[in-house]
Amino acid sequence: MRLRNKPWAKEKIAAYPHYVIPDPEAKRGRWHELFGNDRPIHIEIGTGKGKFITGMAKLHRDVNFIGIELYPSVLVSALDKLIESELPNVRLLNANAKDLGLFFADGEVSRIYLNFSDPWPKKRHEKRRLTYRDFLALYERILTEDGDIHLKTDNQPFFEYSLVSLSQYGFVLAAVQLDLHRSDVEGNVMTEYEEKFSAKGNRIYRCEAVRPRRA
Amino acid sequence: MRLRNKPWAKEKIAAYPHYVIPDPEAKRGRWHELFGNDRPIHIEIGTGKGKFITGMAKLHRDVNFIGIELYPSVLVSALDKLIESELPNVRLLNANAKDLGLFFADGEVSRIYLNFSDPWPKKRHEKRRLTYRDFLALYERILTEDGDIHLKTDNQPFFEYSLVSLSQYGFVLAAVQLDLHRSDVEGNVMTEYEEKFSAKGNRIYRCEAVRPRRA
Repeated sequence: MRLRNKPWAKEKIAAYPHYVIPDPEAKRGRWHELFGNDRPIHIEIGTGKGKFITGMAKLHRDVNFIGIELYPSVLVSALDKLIESELPNVRLLNANAKDLGLFFADGEVSRIYLNFSDPWPKKRHEKRRLTYRDFLALYERILTEDGDIHLKTDNQPFFEYSLVSLSQYGFVLAAVQLDLHRSDVEGNVMTEYEEKFSAKGNRIYRCEAVRPRRA
Repeated sequence: MRLRNKPWAKEKIAAYPHYVIPDPEAKRGRWHELFGNDRPIHIEIGTGKGKFITGMAKLHRDVNFIGIELYPSVLVSALDKLIESELPNVRLLNANAKDLGLFFADGEVSRIYLNFSDPWPKKRHEKRRLTYRDFLALYERILTEDGDIHLKTDNQPFFEYSLVSLSQYGFVLAAVQLDLHRSDVEGNVMTEYEEKFSAKGNRIYRCEAVRPRRA
């Protein structure tokens, strides 16, 4: 995503601590308390401008959503959508995915969405890909026993890599779509990027992978 | 594949028992003896006209290949290629894949090739697909401990189905290519069908899946 620098972004984020949680470490193991219910928690890593997570939150009122985004100048757009929609079942974190273990207790998250993650195409950047085994180990820890990952991307090599990495780590594929917008999958909520990209007629790849069942 | 009826096919096959093994049940557990060496055995299920298996046998002299094909009128074309090339490391079976367990002992096969298998698109025909779980159970039994399946297809729904079915059964993906002929995979040997199909610019899907490691 192209980033426009918004020097006021951090200030705006700080002004809405109800929506963008300023101290996520303090909420570790206490997210259900924060939402005031026992409904499942779904997180999106790389929430961007928030179209997906707010769209999902409108469709699935019985789920608590947490969107995680590293860049403040992007996150403010997601924040704007929250302020406008007043959705009670969404929170945002301005944070780095590698710190997930600090924010979530073991088994606290039911589903992880990875939407159009940076493919980091160079082999020497493999460790930065959000489906690299070290990230999968993090996800395994914070996911519930039958928790899963839902991944979408337009990047063919990243999707190929992710299928193999997930499988080798022990995740089990529950669904694969190799051309999502020409499939019969229902209820797909598009991200900003997905809308733009698929309008060109390009393929969107998608998979669901269930957490490893360890003996 | 379109089948032209060749009433003389069975007779011709019977005339070459050195190439098309007439009593594969009798060879169960004794294929290395038949080949006269201890080299790995790779089988292709649905060998068709034999372009793939003879091409592979020429490239890989250190591997024993066995091609299995149900239709005599197709298998004779593979037989012709064998007669002409006099390859010492290929044999053919005129047989049904569901009988694999009768022909091969546990752990006798190192690799199974599934090339452009019939996709059986209707849900009610799922059990006929060569990546249905009952077939995977057969493959697991006859494969060596670190044996694997190499699958190619042009059929997107069949490939999606196969990835999920393999993963759910316990096979682990070692490689995935979502556009084989535009990938950097080396040494790909094309089938007759693959040549015709990919010439139209269509995608070929490919994966490698390693046998489940049971506790």
